[in-house]
Amino acid sequence: MTPKPVAKAVPLRETLRAAQGPVTLLGYDATSKPLAPRSKSEAAKELAKTGKVLAAQQEMLFANGANGDRRRVLLVLQGTDTSGKDGVVSHVVGQVGPAGVRITSFKKPTAEEAAHHFLWRIRRALPPAGMIGVFNRSHYEDVLVTRVHESIDDDAWAERIADINAFERQLAESGTVLLKCFLHISYGEQRARLLARLDDPTKVWKFNPADIDERAYWSDYQSAYAAAIAATSTESAPWYIVPSDSKWYRNWAVSQLLRDALLGLELSYPAADFDVEAARARLQPPF
Amino acid sequence: MTPKPVAKAVPLRETLRAAQGPVTLLGYDATSKPLAPRSKSEAAKELAKTGKVLAAQQEMLFANGANGDRRRVLLVLQGTDTSGKDGVVSHVVGQVGPAGVRITSFKKPTAEEAAHHFLWRIRRALPPAGMIGVFNRSHYEDVLVTRVHESIDDDAWAERIADINAFERQLAESGTVLLKCFLHISYGEQRARLLARLDDPTKVWKFNPADIDERAYWSDYQSAYAAAIAATSTESAPWYIVPSDSKWYRNWAVSQLLRDALLGLELSYPAADFDVEAARARLQPPF
Repeated sequence: MTPKPVAKAVPLRETLRAAQGPVTLLGYDATSKPLAPRSKSEAAKELAKTGKVLAAQQEMLFANGANGDRRRVLLVLQGTDTSGKDGVVSHVVGQVGPAGVRITSFKKPTAEEAAHHFLWRIRRALPPAGMIGVFNRSHYEDVLVTRVHESIDDDAWAERIADINAFERQLAESGTVLLKCFLHISYGEQRARLLARLDDPTKVWKFNPADIDERAYWSDYQSAYAAAIAATSTESAPWYIVPSDSKWYRNWAVSQLLRDALLGLELSYPAADFDVEAARARLQPPF
Repeated sequence: MTPKPVAKAVPLRETLRAAQGPVTLLGYDATSKPLAPRSKSEAAKELAKTGKVLAAQQEMLFANGANGDRRRVLLVLQGTDTSGKDGVVSHVVGQVGPAGVRITSFKKPTAEEAAHHFLWRIRRALPPAGMIGVFNRSHYEDVLVTRVHESIDDDAWAERIADINAFERQLAESGTVLLKCFLHISYGEQRARLLARLDDPTKVWKFNPADIDERAYWSDYQSAYAAAIAATSTESAPWYIVPSDSKWYRNWAVSQLLRDALLGLELSYPAADFDVEAARARLQPPF
């Protein structure tokens, strides 16, 4: 019997990758679950399993970094308020040894930051060699908020986009694997999550009434995201649009993307660069 | 029947706290397990349980920090090579949400760091309000390595000790809870762990032949630690001597100490500082 030809599995990264050319976020269903495990509990099991792979890969990345390898990974998380950026940090990144991770949450620029080029604070937060960097919001805020509130004109926006593409190309050239995830939620889901925060005494501190003001600009933000994603999804720094109305799907999907980015580095532990036998001989008792 | 008087439990922090006055580390048994759970598996269960408490407390600390509370926690980990500092970071600190933790590993000072006062790089690594800072090695290296290798004289040593005590008092005054742990291992256990690294292809990258050279100064390091601990174990910044020949005891003990430090803050979630009903009303459909 000839074996049946096996259907080649489409990797998640191809499925979630932002389409080439103009992007309309309306074309992406925030409630969908492409390639998902069959159930929430299956996804939890896979997430835990992937977590172990992430931890092992991170340790190898770190070991190589300590040995002169310049490679590193940068996970960029973007999305509207309540889209789950903190959740990904906690549930996905939290599975990796904390010493190998550098997390930066970008807020409204301080006076010092605002006095510099918008990439100044970003460069200062880049992960060292061997580390996984995580940006909770990023330089993309500077082409999103600014566009929605019209604090920069089209020329300035285009200039920033060009700056970002050049910056990200340089990162890739110097050994940084970029993984940019847009956590895509629907308008109704944001309402539900904001209301849930109001109802929960352990979550209400996360609520900022200004978030309601920003919600009034929902469509403008969606357009601004679409424009930024279309203009900056490059071969070396692709965007992934992660349907995020389901929290378990979102966590599962980002963990898979991060795992694949790490596996793509084809890491192994560095061999000893010293005489192991001599070291062993010196360590014999009574020494 | 009158209930029997319940023996008041001695908290771990009193048991492990460095004795007042001169300390001789020989008086502390690195293999002991004071107040330990009955078995390794019991300890693992307690560690997982304590991990959930740590995560919940950290989140509350963070929530308060976001609300203007200046308090924070700083865990200082010291100990000879292989004493388990990385292990504590991974197994204890790793149980807490990674966004609420700031970990710094201090290496041999860079040229820039060495050109400054020895506390310069330390101040730059302090945790922001609401965060748990972790120092993997710390300013104590500057009164340990230097004393062992006689790169500073007794007067300079005493001056640095005075600097450290003033610095830590200022930290305490400005809302930092300090938890200083010396991970105490025996000479034989260090040999075993160094040899184990040589035998394990996934661990050999951690091995540095220079560590064997430093091992030749074992007794000098023990004396230097004893002197530093005796001179800097203060009311607001006490030292804990954690017997660390057993990895599971070490992780359990540090997790208990960290939990108690957090519980001592008597945290609760901050209440909403805005009109919750008005916010809820604004969020009704179709908005």
